[in-house]
Amino acid sequence: MNTFGRRFRLTTFGESHGPAIGAVVDGCPAGLEVGAGDIQAELDKRKPGQSSVTSGRKEPDRVEILSGLFEGKTTGMPIAMLVRNVDVDSSAYENIKDLLRPGHADYGYLAKYGFRDHRGGGRSSGRETAGRVMGGAVAKKLLSLRGIHVYAHTASIYDVKAGEVTPEDIINNTYKNPVRCADPRAVKEMEEAINMAKRDGDSVGGTVEVIATGVPAGLGEPVFGKLDADLAGALMGIGAVKGVEVGLGFGAASLRGSEVNDEFYWDGGVRTRTNRAGGILGGISTGMPIVCRIAVKPTPSISKPQQTVNVETKEDAIIEIKGRHDPSIVPRIVPVVEAMTALVIADHMLISGRIGPALP
Amino acid sequence: MNTFGRRFRLTTFGESHGPAIGAVVDGCPAGLEVGAGDIQAELDKRKPGQSSVTSGRKEPDRVEILSGLFEGKTTGMPIAMLVRNVDVDSSAYENIKDLLRPGHADYGYLAKYGFRDHRGGGRSSGRETAGRVMGGAVAKKLLSLRGIHVYAHTASIYDVKAGEVTPEDIINNTYKNPVRCADPRAVKEMEEAINMAKRDGDSVGGTVEVIATGVPAGLGEPVFGKLDADLAGALMGIGAVKGVEVGLGFGAASLRGSEVNDEFYWDGGVRTRTNRAGGILGGISTGMPIVCRIAVKPTPSISKPQQTVNVETKEDAIIEIKGRHDPSIVPRIVPVVEAMTALVIADHMLISGRIGPALP
Amino acid sequence: MNTFGRRFRLTTFGESHGPAIGAVVDGCPAGLEVGAGDIQAELDKRKPGQSSVTSGRKEPDRVEILSGLFEGKTTGMPIAMLVRNVDVDSSAYENIKDLLRPGHADYGYLAKYGFRDHRGGGRSSGRETAGRVMGGAVAKKLLSLRGIHVYAHTASIYDVKAGEVTPEDIINNTYKNPVRCADPRAVKEMEEAINMAKRDGDSVGGTVEVIATGVPAGLGEPVFGKLDADLAGALMGIGAVKGVEVGLGFGAASLRGSEVNDEFYWDGGVRTRTNRAGGILGGISTGMPIVCRIAVKPTPSISKPQQTVNVETKEDAIIEIKGRHDPSIVPRIVPVVEAMTALVIADHMLISGRIGPALP
Amino acid sequence: MNTFGRRFRLTTFGESHGPAIGAVVDGCPAGLEVGAGDIQAELDKRKPGQSSVTSGRKEPDRVEILSGLFEGKTTGMPIAMLVRNVDVDSSAYENIKDLLRPGHADYGYLAKYGFRDHRGGGRSSGRETAGRVMGGAVAKKLLSLRGIHVYAHTASIYDVKAGEVTPEDIINNTYKNPVRCADPRAVKEMEEAINMAKRDGDSVGGTVEVIATGVPAGLGEPVFGKLDADLAGALMGIGAVKGVEVGLGFGAASLRGSEVNDEFYWDGGVRTRTNRAGGILGGISTGMPIVCRIAVKPTPSISKPQQTVNVETKEDAIIEIKGRHDPSIVPRIVPVVEAMTALVIADHMLISGRIGPALP
Repeated sequence: MNTFGRRFRLTTFGESHGPAIGAVVDGCPAGLEVGAGDIQAELDKRKPGQSSVTSGRKEPDRVEILSGLFEGKTTGMPIAMLVRNVDVDSSAYENIKDLLRPGHADYGYLAKYGFRDHRGGGRSSGRETAGRVMGGAVAKKLLSLRGIHVYAHTASIYDVKAGEVTPEDIINNTYKNPVRCADPRAVKEMEEAINMAKRDGDSVGGTVEVIATGVPAGLGEPVFGKLDADLAGALMGIGAVKGVEVGLGFGAASLRGSEVNDEFYWDGGVRTRTNRAGGILGGISTGMPIVCRIAVKPTPSISKPQQTVNVETKEDAIIEIKGRHDPSIVPRIVPVVEAMTALVIADHMLISGRIGPALP
Repeated sequence: MNTFGRRFRLTTFGESHGPAIGAVVDGCPAGLEVGAGDIQAELDKRKPGQSSVTSGRKEPDRVEILSGLFEGKTTGMPIAMLVRNVDVDSSAYENIKDLLRPGHADYGYLAKYGFRDHRGGGRSSGRETAGRVMGGAVAKKLLSLRGIHVYAHTASIYDVKAGEVTPEDIINNTYKNPVRCADPRAVKEMEEAINMAKRDGDSVGGTVEVIATGVPAGLGEPVFGKLDADLAGALMGIGAVKGVEVGLGFGAASLRGSEVNDEFYWDGGVRTRTNRAGGILGGISTGMPIVCRIAVKPTPSISKPQQTVNVETKEDAIIEIKGRHDPSIVPRIVPVVEAMTALVIADHMLISGRIGPALP
Repeated sequence: MNTFGRRFRLTTFGESHGPAIGAVVDGCPAGLEVGAGDIQAELDKRKPGQSSVTSGRKEPDRVEILSGLFEGKTTGMPIAMLVRNVDVDSSAYENIKDLLRPGHADYGYLAKYGFRDHRGGGRSSGRETAGRVMGGAVAKKLLSLRGIHVYAHTASIYDVKAGEVTPEDIINNTYKNPVRCADPRAVKEMEEAINMAKRDGDSVGGTVEVIATGVPAGLGEPVFGKLDADLAGALMGIGAVKGVEVGLGFGAASLRGSEVNDEFYWDGGVRTRTNRAGGILGGISTGMPIVCRIAVKPTPSISKPQQTVNVETKEDAIIEIKGRHDPSIVPRIVPVVEAMTALVIADHMLISGRIGPALP
Repeated sequence: MNTFGRRFRLTTFGESHGPAIGAVVDGCPAGLEVGAGDIQAELDKRKPGQSSVTSGRKEPDRVEILSGLFEGKTTGMPIAMLVRNVDVDSSAYENIKDLLRPGHADYGYLAKYGFRDHRGGGRSSGRETAGRVMGGAVAKKLLSLRGIHVYAHTASIYDVKAGEVTPEDIINNTYKNPVRCADPRAVKEMEEAINMAKRDGDSVGGTVEVIATGVPAGLGEPVFGKLDADLAGALMGIGAVKGVEVGLGFGAASLRGSEVNDEFYWDGGVRTRTNRAGGILGGISTGMPIVCRIAVKPTPSISKPQQTVNVETKEDAIIEIKGRHDPSIVPRIVPVVEAMTALVIADHMLISGRIGPALP
């Protein structure tokens, strides 16, 4: 299934080593001013080849918009977007085409489809997230009209944790460093953790936090279209993500109710002083910022020798993965997390009728 | 939205203090032997009033099956099931009907619907999970035909953690104690943690683990219908859940790739010795057991006084929640976790074509 | 699949000779005043046993509402409704349980499910439409708040055609006669056509017209959620329907563009003098009344001997269908057509954001 | 909504005067041999500019496949296809940009989106059907593997009706003449009817029949995913279609049950001698050929002067539509009808589990 969302829907296509990666946004209201520049800005955040901590593959990722715009505005029709794959080099995959890469989707695809596209992971490659980012860019632009903003940042890499950060820190710092960390003091250490792993032919994981501000109270549906359920599904569905938590998350499990409940007070409206809930109660937004965190596993592609199976000969084998890989996928997942979060919130803005088919 | 699933679909209805809770399962193949006994067995696992650590509300929760069966077997038609609410006492809610309960969905419902059913939380009450459990019971029966079994158990309550357990421990011990713990040595301490909170007018959280065995490799779809994404959505959508992780989960974030990848070997089939992935790679099942953990927050209904707002007078107020509440929802969430997990896996068995409209 | 609609969703369940027929409406906004009386009024329109031209089965069809209402209003939660089957007599089906009834779904169900519920047709019986009518009743009530009304009436039975009728004729006459005809002069002849067929152990078909007034311009989506496409799917999906047309319908096929186009004029708004389009152009409502017609085939259950196959012995056989059947299903399909039309329009009112989760 | 289907899903995009028309097929199993040639063959059937009876717009409609294929076979991943718009001339639309074209979607789009793309009808143009045809081409290829074939042909144009035709006539003749008629004797008269209308600055309608052979018994779902309901929705959703009927269709309305039922006999399997049902009973296929007919209205774009409204000045106006238009859309709708029919049947092959995620 390559379509996401119920009312604001994103369909993506394309493989790592195919001709192109694309996205079709359906359900965006008419009248939104959006252009290639908006999409490009988001694509540029996840573009590979930008530093020593990311893959060396050089993809310009220039977006072409194929439909849905007229005179600089959306028309209510589907918005199709495309980036061509340019720097494709399948040679590194030829000698491992019968070997299952540990930690990768290879075996699952084989079991499901009786077949797999070994060239760079095909569609299971992180390259598919370019489609998510293009769709998310439209969602972000739409949300910004309603004062909703989505920010993600790297909260930890391996054993290096960022310090407490303010929203301003996130806005000001995140995309100014290659690890996408909002705490400038942690950047160097994070880079070092990644580079050390890289030197060892290994990789590292980390955590990413995402915050959405300006989300009105009342988004989310009982009992199977809850906002947190949709966010969890959206974020867990990003490759390499192994955990999702909202607000206090796993921390709430070892606390008491009196330590977790956010008390209400009246201030011309209903407010809470704390936000342990992460902006969602009973699956519905409370008007406080939405706060989620995700766990990202280390990139499975490592050059260290690993035990595996040759599916052709049905024998044990050793695999050493060459190709060009991110020694940590964490920095490049940050804009993808923003995209998926924006898509979920945009979807619920439409579901709740707060945004209709035409912008005023 | 009150329908869950794409091919094996569950629709639930009913409020805590309304006439009944119900479930309609649609998409179950014809020819499955299932009866009220199978449904009742699962309902009995979550029934309130069974011990000092659960709510005192006495609900017999006797299931009535209204459709979809003929001569003891499913017909392929929707299976509608009903339990009547019997022990309804709305009096405890009368004096708090204008007060927002901290940690509850009250404010979200009000913001969304301009209105809320204050009687016991209406549909946002944990009582709605009876509908999930009825639907899950059908899914479990269906899966058992294919050798797939789903087991959940309490992994921690407050600061008490269960020790390592085997699948046999889970099967043998979980439902023999009121905290639903598979490690007999931790039971007493968990009970004590709950009872201590109860005495303080407070509540406690915990974690639940769920394991699905016998799941074939190849379930799950790229890139937006991944098995782990669907599980995360399903589990996060259970009331009080604030986090979901698969396999190593958040633990993977501070490790290296060589410590997280499960190496393959050949043994008449593709196997892995470790299962750090929790049975899912790239969103597709690997044939290893599916392992997820969830974080459950402390029950928000506590009798301790809390600051809140009276939405009628628009003034600050103090709330003391009486009613009958579970001092920890963790034990009663265990069968709900099993139900949602079974529903997701059954859905993917149908999506993948492994189960068709008729059982052989 | 037993769920209909995208935003205003109806799930139905129940078999002709099972315990009950039910309906769950999901997506109805909060704040709608609706009660058992509203549902009952619609159910009474399709109730069997009301005249010589309908089945002799006596079903009181008393609705019980199980959820979704609080203090006389909808809460935004699913509305579950139930009628018990009372006058079940499966004896007439025992001796034909291995014979395929010509014109019925028997063979398709057998091919699909490897099995069929022979008791009165199970779920393929017209009795399932009680669920549609319950759901449609909620939709009609919701639409009436916005000045939208849906009226169906019998346009022809066998070779008897009703004359031209006005909206007032439809409102005043349709449910005052057993054939549901808006033209009082055609009633007797229609009754006679049905009774003559009945005396011959045969049955007759007919056509039904449905008109929706007050539908605002702008409902319907390009290019796969068109209003006429959704109506066609909804109406063709009613048992025994073999054709659907909108506006001039098949008549437009032998005309020229200048005879089919509705010219526009300005009258404080955009208007057309004619309504050959039946209120829909390019799949989107024009603000003129929606007009559709359906073709209903003769009831396939006839007592005349017919050639068939015994699926057990795999031999040719003769079948004479006794049971209690409508010699023409046309009169009883009229309220079902209203229900399905109302469901589609209500769905599009929500899809277009014209109705949100809460009524003002 | 620009996505069609539940399991075999087609998403289309693109406007008449935008950069391109595209299609993304999702859910096609892995292992299907398909290539640009297969898609091109179908596109060529609907290409404009092929004769005097079609629009003079010259579009080469060369397909580019962007994803989903590897070594000549599908991979199970989405198949994205694109044709560039080449012969775009928006000048003819400039002087009518504020005039509503009678019989067109203009007013509905304006009412819905507060805006419309006047250039050649934007997305409401028949040009969007290129996307449907690309998707249908994949469906047809898939179905042909299972011996299922879909053929449409022009049954009438204006007052000219084709005679009885055999399946061989349809296969041999349809695409050999510009009106897509299977009866060679009617071709000249049909051409003349179109050309006469053209000379008068007018247009004509007609009817198209579609037949699907080789469809197994058992496709279609009770009660809301019926095969005939899905076909009716799919076919009514094609622009200019105003009616759909299955089997005897509207003819069944004036017949008796004994004249409509298809009697069964045993011949090593269950068979019927007649096929008045058009291959579908109770919404489920019977194993006989599926037969549907649609009514196509005359092209609304006519050069004859028509009364209309200028939406800018809010005054009455006269419109004479120049541009390049098909004087009858019937011939060019024929391959679109095949595409939509194939998409519905392919969808149900997957829904019923008869085709899984991988071809054997």
